[in-house]
Amino acid sequence: MSDSILLSHGSGGVESQNLITELFYPLLEGCVMGGGEDAGIGSLSQNTEKFALSTDGYVVSPLFFNGGDIGKLCVCGSCNDVAMMGAKARYLSASFMIEEGFLIADLKRIVESFANTLKQSGAKLLSADTKVLPKGTLDKLFITTTALGEFLYPHLNLSAFGIPQDCAILVSGNIGTHGAVIYSNREGIGLQSDLQSDCSLLYPVLEPLFEAKLQLYALRDATRGGIASVLNEWANASKIGIEIEEEHLPILSQVRGICELLGFEAYNLANEGMCMLCVAKEDATKALEILHSQGAPNAAIIGYTTSENATKVVLKTPFNARRYLDYPSGELLPRIC
Amino acid sequence: MSDSILLSHGSGGVESQNLITELFYPLLEGCVMGGGEDAGIGSLSQNTEKFALSTDGYVVSPLFFNGGDIGKLCVCGSCNDVAMMGAKARYLSASFMIEEGFLIADLKRIVESFANTLKQSGAKLLSADTKVLPKGTLDKLFITTTALGEFLYPHLNLSAFGIPQDCAILVSGNIGTHGAVIYSNREGIGLQSDLQSDCSLLYPVLEPLFEAKLQLYALRDATRGGIASVLNEWANASKIGIEIEEEHLPILSQVRGICELLGFEAYNLANEGMCMLCVAKEDATKALEILHSQGAPNAAIIGYTTSENATKVVLKTPFNARRYLDYPSGELLPRIC
Repeated sequence: MSDSILLSHGSGGVESQNLITELFYPLLEGCVMGGGEDAGIGSLSQNTEKFALSTDGYVVSPLFFNGGDIGKLCVCGSCNDVAMMGAKARYLSASFMIEEGFLIADLKRIVESFANTLKQSGAKLLSADTKVLPKGTLDKLFITTTALGEFLYPHLNLSAFGIPQDCAILVSGNIGTHGAVIYSNREGIGLQSDLQSDCSLLYPVLEPLFEAKLQLYALRDATRGGIASVLNEWANASKIGIEIEEEHLPILSQVRGICELLGFEAYNLANEGMCMLCVAKEDATKALEILHSQGAPNAAIIGYTTSENATKVVLKTPFNARRYLDYPSGELLPRIC
Repeated sequence: MSDSILLSHGSGGVESQNLITELFYPLLEGCVMGGGEDAGIGSLSQNTEKFALSTDGYVVSPLFFNGGDIGKLCVCGSCNDVAMMGAKARYLSASFMIEEGFLIADLKRIVESFANTLKQSGAKLLSADTKVLPKGTLDKLFITTTALGEFLYPHLNLSAFGIPQDCAILVSGNIGTHGAVIYSNREGIGLQSDLQSDCSLLYPVLEPLFEAKLQLYALRDATRGGIASVLNEWANASKIGIEIEEEHLPILSQVRGICELLGFEAYNLANEGMCMLCVAKEDATKALEILHSQGAPNAAIIGYTTSENATKVVLKTPFNARRYLDYPSGELLPRIC
């Protein structure tokens, strides 16, 4: 590892993984529960009822972007993280770090958006904190949120670590949209587009699948590092191969355009209202039907898990060429979420 | 309210209260549970067992100070916040925001200190997140922690809102020490001292009081805004008067020295391992004995709640003069915790 923190340590790609596995995990040995999932699962001692808990820091720039702002983003992000374990967010806590001189009017807009999204989620704010820092010591506003989620469907047992071969891999919507929006909205970049971030709550989209008792193995929202990171995490965690059909990846034409212009790949870009699903092959069509009818019209089956190429993700191009799809490396786009 | 955020909005004093009551509360109406306590109390729907949840952002500068560092501070701070509701921290989650270029060696020291304090608390880390930001967009390192605490003593019903008259007010230790240390350790100030921050876990000090089933009404760790803020919050929340004997306030001579030099009052300075207790008058001596024998040798009875001067805090000087002790106002010392 380098002597100092690099931007790529925060990319959600291979260097982020290294920071966690080489620095955090060894030092925290003996005091961590779980790990490698979107949320941890705990319970109180006198009680067998489990809950999911997830914390994320939000540092997106710009604070306001097409389709959302940091207030909406942080509520969606934390609620989605517990949803990926099959839990419905019941409580949220939040810490606001604010730069001296930040406009009260902007703070109001953000807290309003935070409150609206919270109401939509059905969760309640149980604890909050505000810190103000001298001008120049943080850029405008950061929010950290923690969601505590309840398991309303006890049959679910979602994990990145137990995915078998011959499952279908689905995405719940178009890929790379949030990343493309942040790029085109960022100061000084100057791309104009009416493209909206996909930033949204995923539990309402997923609940009909839970209700239908389909065989789901894993869910993951493809934020930093995009679907490429999630696929590699799953392949590694479950020691399986994954084969993806490039032509089945749903990508908006505007996102394709931005990617071509800037040399990005949509599968490396962040999403904030799209998740990946690992579903038993026999349930895949049913899952897709439910998603299509319940607010996820662009959901698609994009590939399958295999016994070949364990721990690797293979991308099959429209010309039937195959290549490994690796973890993104380096830092494409800091402060995406 | 001003047009933009002022440093004093983060002081823990009157302007902080205004930001919360005039901006956050109205916008969040209908989606907040509790409020006005150190931690929120929730439960899952199919379960009557309650838990305490508290989130705080830590932005202390310098990151390393006499008696601790940000890693120790954030674990103590969040565990203490749930302890103030009578709950023992069982789970912690953490979000690390790191500036590009931050030294890996410093990060290791901080994570090590975080892990050691976590082990001491008995809580487990259930969820964590790291973000890396481009150089210049945050000052070195911020950590936000959330503690989830379990109630092991169901007879406790601690709240700032139900304090009756004729209770004793105690402090568990010397006041103002953390604030004085941060000031003397801060770059460019140049005060030399071997004074150590009081930064520590409070649950072990309080548990014998819970065990002894004393009549406790409220607990509060006196962080930002010092004991002056806590006393005013209690007086306001419970519509009572509080009378404090200035000569009974335990203050280290070095802290007195720093206060005299800089024109501070110890009762406005932050503490990170000292809490205030509101105890039935008849249990006060017993509470003090337990504190003295259980790791809080400097605990003291500093005053009483009264029916006179409702919502006001009165400070009685050694010369029997009386004056109102207000919320601190303005910003003495940003980035204290």
